[in-house]
Formats: sequence, structure tokens, C-alpha cells
Amino acid sequence: MEFSLTVLGSSSALPTATRHPSAHVLNVNEKYYLIDCGEGTQMQLRKYRFRFQRIDHIFISHLHGDHYFGLVGLLTSMILLGRNKPLTIFAPADLEALIESQLEGIPAKHRFEVCYIPLDFTQPQIIHEDKRVTVQSFPVQHRVPTCGFIFREQPRLRNVRKPALVAYEIPLLAIPGIKAGKDYITPDGEVIPNDQLTVDPPNPRSFAYSADTQYLPELADMLREVDLLYHEATFGDDLLERAQKTRHTTARQAASLAKAAGVKQLVLGHFSARYKTLEKLEQEAKEEFAEAQLAVEGTTYSVALETFKK
Amino acid sequence: MEFSLTVLGSSSALPTATRHPSAHVLNVNEKYYLIDCGEGTQMQLRKYRFRFQRIDHIFISHLHGDHYFGLVGLLTSMILLGRNKPLTIFAPADLEALIESQLEGIPAKHRFEVCYIPLDFTQPQIIHEDKRVTVQSFPVQHRVPTCGFIFREQPRLRNVRKPALVAYEIPLLAIPGIKAGKDYITPDGEVIPNDQLTVDPPNPRSFAYSADTQYLPELADMLREVDLLYHEATFGDDLLERAQKTRHTTARQAASLAKAAGVKQLVLGHFSARYKTLEKLEQEAKEEFAEAQLAVEGTTYSVALETFKK
Repeated sequence: MEFSLTVLGSSSALPTATRHPSAHVLNVNEKYYLIDCGEGTQMQLRKYRFRFQRIDHIFISHLHGDHYFGLVGLLTSMILLGRNKPLTIFAPADLEALIESQLEGIPAKHRFEVCYIPLDFTQPQIIHEDKRVTVQSFPVQHRVPTCGFIFREQPRLRNVRKPALVAYEIPLLAIPGIKAGKDYITPDGEVIPNDQLTVDPPNPRSFAYSADTQYLPELADMLREVDLLYHEATFGDDLLERAQKTRHTTARQAASLAKAAGVKQLVLGHFSARYKTLEKLEQEAKEEFAEAQLAVEGTTYSVALETFKK
Repeated sequence: MEFSLTVLGSSSALPTATRHPSAHVLNVNEKYYLIDCGEGTQMQLRKYRFRFQRIDHIFISHLHGDHYFGLVGLLTSMILLGRNKPLTIFAPADLEALIESQLEGIPAKHRFEVCYIPLDFTQPQIIHEDKRVTVQSFPVQHRVPTCGFIFREQPRLRNVRKPALVAYEIPLLAIPGIKAGKDYITPDGEVIPNDQLTVDPPNPRSFAYSADTQYLPELADMLREVDLLYHEATFGDDLLERAQKTRHTTARQAASLAKAAGVKQLVLGHFSARYKTLEKLEQEAKEEFAEAQLAVEGTTYSVALETFKK
């Protein structure tokens, strides 16, 4: 049961020869949620062997080019590959016209359905739910309207204790109810409490994507105890003023936020092209939060299932 | 005096993990002419160390995404890098609105001047001239209006024979005229014919870019004796019918055309993603024209100066 983030692009606005614009794949049990889609995302997806047809949902945090210029190319390739199932794109409302004007020349018979869902920048809200995850958007503060996203696994059914099922001679038909948390009543009217029949399922896992934002300490509540946080860290301490001016976050600030929120894993990215090497950013982040890691493109950051925790 | 083509992308519509969408740099004496600009071109330019500020002219052959989706990202990066000199883009007229709608959010004070020159798809014409080259567009036949381009070096001034200048005691002031082909008249009225004072300069070199097109044998006249031809070769013999249907050319056809036109070097590209390896295309091309080469991304194909040919 995979729950992992692969970073496809770790650069900020200006890509370098080795760092690509923002793009991230959240793999939840082999369904891919694509988060931001900078130029070259389709090539990065191919390079790291993510199959396009496993992407049904794309989340675009804001309309700076380094977060969406790869979308039209990806959609075009999906069309060329003969996709016919629908795709949902959560994005600022203006994206639809920018993309569709570039796809106008493609005959309707070749097009698949693309559903554009506009983001709300006024308050957090649940924007998507499927059998794997619930996705919540939350506004952050950048130079243009921007949202982050939290992905939470759906709660699992309870795990049955097989020996107990045998001992109480529980019929197959009763098991779905027991997995859902019900007690079992024997033919003699005896009540077997659910906790004698089941154990807690693994905790639902969670991932949060901060998007481009100025440092917002108050986000700690929203991000409380997520398993994995990807936060931008465009600058180091040396460019704190520039971070404030351009509404970005430093590595140290992002790490402080992660610590305050009690997140379990932190991955930092969206690095300025000014930094040829990133050791200083890593060091500054680790001073605040020892578990901080710098994103390496193509690397997959997994969240393990915590089984039978109770 | 560099005159060379570097292929940045050799794929057709669908990029692969190893082949990028169309983009080509013609380097004429360290000025770069960018021909087509598929997704990821700016990263390829960086990878192969082409400095953005040496690009003042971009040529977009047609409005299929694999030939222009990288343009908005390149322009955005040029803005971020603080460019202030103008850039000229030769392209189908509709390109301007597609690009400019995506740059709308950028404050005017950060913008540099972009001059969009619409291509004419009815007849060949000279579209650009500077001190290095003359560029001619010529319509080809594809599914949408498409132009190829021929770049011809400006003729050089004649090379003076230094011993002759000394022998005839020719003053410095007379030399520009002599380089331009004039005879020299001595103070005694003696006429020294120019060919005693100079030798022919190197021949102007030429490069032609066929763009996406169906096989057009009649292009041989237009391409007569160019030094270097880049021609699309989307398919092999095995997909001749598909080439005809989609208005593309096979490797064999492109090589036949090159041979008929008497071009000196042929580089083939724009390969379909169907071909994992390209040996068959190479073999088919070489059967028609032994000098045919398949484009390798990052490779530079140079045209040597033929000095003192006479």
C-alpha cells in the first residue's frame, strides 16, 4: 500500500541544468496525484517511469509559469496516447482559458474530457474525495492567489482477529459490520464487544504540500502532525529579505514550521537558481528540525503504514 | 567563424525519456538563431551551455505544441534574468496571443520588447537580414500552415593578398574599396586589376530547416546545394502510409530529397516515439544518401569554411 511523494522538479522560477520546475507525484496505492506541473513534467514523468494513465487528478497551486507551463504538453501527449477517460484539474479559475486556447486546433473527436475545478483562495475546503484520499486546499500567502493541499488517506476498516472469529463461530455475513466497528451478538444474545474481535487498522497517512508562500507560522495548526510535508525553501538565511519581499520562505523558516506542527517528515524544495549547491540550506534547516531533507529529483519519499498500532 | 547546428530535441509530437521535442540552435559566429522551441528547450539550452542573451531571433515553423510549448517558459526566464534588449519571433500569426495571454500577469516594467513577425505561407520570402545572415522562409505541406527556413551567410569581403599590397605600395585608405572588389589605380594611373590584389573569400555557408512536412520532391530546387540540411524523418519505410496520412516524411524520402538537391550534409530528426532504436531509419536513409546522419541531441553539426577556394 504505497503512499509516497516523488519530486520531479526542485527548482524555483528559473530552472537550472540540473533542477527542473515544480512537479510532484503523490502515489497512493498506484494512483498518481500530480501536484503542480512545470515545464518538462511529462519528460520527468517518463524518465521516472510514471504512467500517464494513472493520473486522474492534477492540482495546480497557482498561476506562476514554473508551476503550470508543462500542463499543456502533458495534456497534448495524453491526447496523442489516445486517452479517453476524464481528467480533473484543480487550479485557479484562469487556467482553463490559458490551456484550452492552446488546444483549440485539436479536433473534438480526439479530446478527452477535462474538468477544471476552480480553487477557493478565501478558506480551507475539501475539494476532492475518492476511495483512496480526501484532499483539502488551504490558501497561503504569495504574490498571486495560491493554495496548498493536504492529502489524507481514507480511514481503513478495522482489522479482524482471526482466532476470535473462529472462537466465537462468527458467520461470514457478520464480518463487514464487525470491520466497520459493530459489536457481535451471538445467537444466544451474548454481546461480544468489537474490541475483542478486531484491532485498530493502520492510521490513515497524510501528506501536505505548502506551495509557494511567505513564512506563515500560523499554518502549524493546519499542518498538525501530517506524516510528510513538502515545503518550499526558495532561499537561505543569506536572502531572508529577498524571501520576504518575493513572498517566499527560507529553509530555516520551513523547518521551524515543520517542527512547530509536529510533522514526521519534511522535504524541502523550490530552490533558487542562485544556489549552485544546497549544503547551507540543508544545514540551516537541520538546525531547526533534524529530520529535514532537501528534495532530490527522482527521489521517492515514502510514508510507511503503521500497522496494529494500538 | 562558427556556423553550426546543435540539435536540442529530436522527438516528434510525443517526447520520450531520452528524446525531447523539437528545438535547434544555429550558431553563426556566436549569435544563436533558435529554430522551433518545444517544451523543455530552456533546460536543454542550459544543459548544452547556450547563453540565452545570445538569442535575438526565434523561428517557429508551425503551431503544433511540440514546436512551441517551450517558448513561454524561455521568455519568462529571459524576463527573470533581466533581459532588456528586444527579441524577434518569426511565427504563425496566432502565436502572439497564445504567448502573451500567459505573460499578462508580469508587470510591464519587467518586460522586454518582443516583436512578433507573422510568417507568410503562400510563397518563399526573405524574412530577416542582419550582418551575419539572410533568412528566407518557404512554405511546406503539413496538417497546419508550416514554413521551413533557409539561413545563408552574408557574402564576405574579398581577402587581400598582403604581398601584393606591399609590392604595389597600396595606401591603407584604398583597402576597403579593394576588399569590396575594386581595382586599384596607382598615382601614375596604372590600373591593377582586383584579382591581382585579392583572392576569393570563403563561400557563404547555408543551412536549411525543412520543418514538419510531407515528402516534397519539388523542394530540391529550393534546397539546391545548401551546406547543411535538417529534415524531419518521423517514420521509417514500415510506416510510409502513416507518414503520408499525417503529412510527415520517411527517412528514405528525406535522404532522396537531400541527394536530389545536392546538399552537402544531411541531419535527420523529429523521430516518432514508436521507434525505441533508430538503426533502421539510419540504414534506409543511407541507402539513398550515404552522408545522411541521424540527429543526436546535444550534438553540434558544423559547416567548415572553405577558404581560398579559387
